Amino acid sequence: MKTKFQQTILAAALVGVVAFTSTIARAQDPLPSWNDGAAKKSINDFVVKTTTAGSPDFVPPEERIATFDMDGTLLVEKPLPAQAEYCFARVFVLAQEKPELKNTEPFKTILSGDQAAIAKLSEKDLLKIVAATLTGITVEQFQAQVKEWVGTGKDPRWKQPFTHLAYQPMLEVLKYLRANGFKTYICTGSGQDFVRVFAEQTFGVPPEQVIGSMGGTSFGYDKDGKPILTKEPKLMLNDDKDAKPQGIHLMIGRRPHAAFGNSDGDRQMLEYTKAGDGARLAMILLHDDAAREYAYGPAQGLPATKMGYFTQALYDEAQKDGWTVISMKNDWKQIFPFENK
Amino acid sequence: MKTKFQQTILAAALVGVVAFTSTIARAQDPLPSWNDGAAKKSINDFVVKTTTAGSPDFVPPEERIATFDMDGTLLVEKPLPAQAEYCFARVFVLAQEKPELKNTEPFKTILSGDQAAIAKLSEKDLLKIVAATLTGITVEQFQAQVKEWVGTGKDPRWKQPFTHLAYQPMLEVLKYLRANGFKTYICTGSGQDFVRVFAEQTFGVPPEQVIGSMGGTSFGYDKDGKPILTKEPKLMLNDDKDAKPQGIHLMIGRRPHAAFGNSDGDRQMLEYTKAGDGARLAMILLHDDAAREYAYGPAQGLPATKMGYFTQALYDEAQKDGWTVISMKNDWKQIFPFENK
Repeated sequence: MKTKFQQTILAAALVGVVAFTSTIARAQDPLPSWNDGAAKKSINDFVVKTTTAGSPDFVPPEERIATFDMDGTLLVEKPLPAQAEYCFARVFVLAQEKPELKNTEPFKTILSGDQAAIAKLSEKDLLKIVAATLTGITVEQFQAQVKEWVGTGKDPRWKQPFTHLAYQPMLEVLKYLRANGFKTYICTGSGQDFVRVFAEQTFGVPPEQVIGSMGGTSFGYDKDGKPILTKEPKLMLNDDKDAKPQGIHLMIGRRPHAAFGNSDGDRQMLEYTKAGDGARLAMILLHDDAAREYAYGPAQGLPATKMGYFTQALYDEAQKDGWTVISMKNDWKQIFPFENK
Repeated sequence: MKTKFQQTILAAALVGVVAFTSTIARAQDPLPSWNDGAAKKSINDFVVKTTTAGSPDFVPPEERIATFDMDGTLLVEKPLPAQAEYCFARVFVLAQEKPELKNTEPFKTILSGDQAAIAKLSEKDLLKIVAATLTGITVEQFQAQVKEWVGTGKDPRWKQPFTHLAYQPMLEVLKYLRANGFKTYICTGSGQDFVRVFAEQTFGVPPEQVIGSMGGTSFGYDKDGKPILTKEPKLMLNDDKDAKPQGIHLMIGRRPHAAFGNSDGDRQMLEYTKAGDGARLAMILLHDDAAREYAYGPAQGLPATKMGYFTQALYDEAQKDGWTVISMKNDWKQIFPFENK
């Protein structure tokens, strides 16, 4: 039992620390890589009104949930999303262990390096590659394989590991929201187990806050009788489009107050988020900066790409529904952490 | 940017508060409803060695995960688990809306109140009841229906809402672990969405930390064009036995350091937890107190029940594998929060 005196001391100490840290936070700009403008303002306004006691839009801390698409929203998705790069790279490793793959499609096409042929692979072919590269091993073996690759893969344009190609302005948003009591989740079409390997270090998002495409596992025992979980070629949820709200409900059980995306695959997540009561923030990133990153998507009259595209219909819905469009070119002062400011 | 002086002040203030609260915590017994004995000692020892800096068994805060079965581990599961009580009660409500159910099996049997006939219902019959009572409505409608029932249902023996029949000693364990940086999860065969409605208030476990049997949802729009999620009669994971480690991996992505159960349905969760490196705590509750709660299960030569039973094989495995058996009769001073101490 605490004495009354102890309680008073403790309360005073806590209040002091909280007040002190709030003062520091307010004095600093939490989004230094953002240019002043509508996008930056909408983030700041949202945080202030959802976290100020007495505000009509105040959200209790336990309900502060924000979800972020990953590829093209938190980091570069060109020339290919990280998950695809990983699976293709893994085919080369497997072909050394099982030389018969060299004469078996679709592995033969991947090993040929013929980009035009690779681009034409069917969804069925891609699922064969996914099954061969991501399943039939324990969850720990998979984690070790991805971890090794993350350290070695290099992006062709910036010659950096892909985890260095996270967007500095979005890292600031993640941090800013967390500093204000929000739980930040990734909600991605990429594999949940894949993203979990690097999400904590790259984005500060722990494994239990990664929602992604979900594969089944099976429980069994290894030859020494030790319990193991093996990854199975069974898709439980393809976490894209209408499945994103489903994945969010499955993993969180609450509707997010903020959501960030960049393509048609994020449409339903943004709609579901925005449809909740009170203040909700829906933001979409437009890749309109060919000089510093890439420009793509039909909303700019540019060609659609196979994954991650921003259609005119999505742009129109954003205007109508009160989502905020982030222009990479105009809203971001700096793109990557490794650039000089 | 904080100045060096500000950083020093802030660090000193934080260290002071942490040291002060640790002193208070150590002075109090965090498990006052537990009798001194092997069970209480194993919990205390586990917490000390996993949270003391420099201990060979130290676990970093982000890896401190503990999972708890619910029915029969955190609260009374007799005469029926809460989820079954709910589904059966819901049949009576539905029969008023759809009178044709009164002449349709298996609803007719439920409505008859004939306990012997109800006990004989097949799994297929039960799944029909589950589908009729838990699906075809939005996730918000379902939450509202369960919330209403939680407030009104009364246990036949103690005449209390079932959420008052949580075990005081286990509430203390949940709180003690959380105070030491553990994230506490429920891992139950009952429905994930069902348990989420009352888990936060009853156990201090937020919706995103409830792992249970998972039903699919579908995304769509209501007549006003508002996005909705509808619960579908599609079982994604029956979170029992070998599916418990699968559910844990799906929802958390880490192996727990502590797990608590009470029946054969928890065996694989306990095995999976115990098989990790370093200090791991596996505990099973033996219901051996007919006077204060119930006594059941083959490990005491008592009859097996349909759900939640403790076999002799499980008892033998506990001895062999270093799990701790909790005797309700001998280890618990008090069973329920509403009892006088």
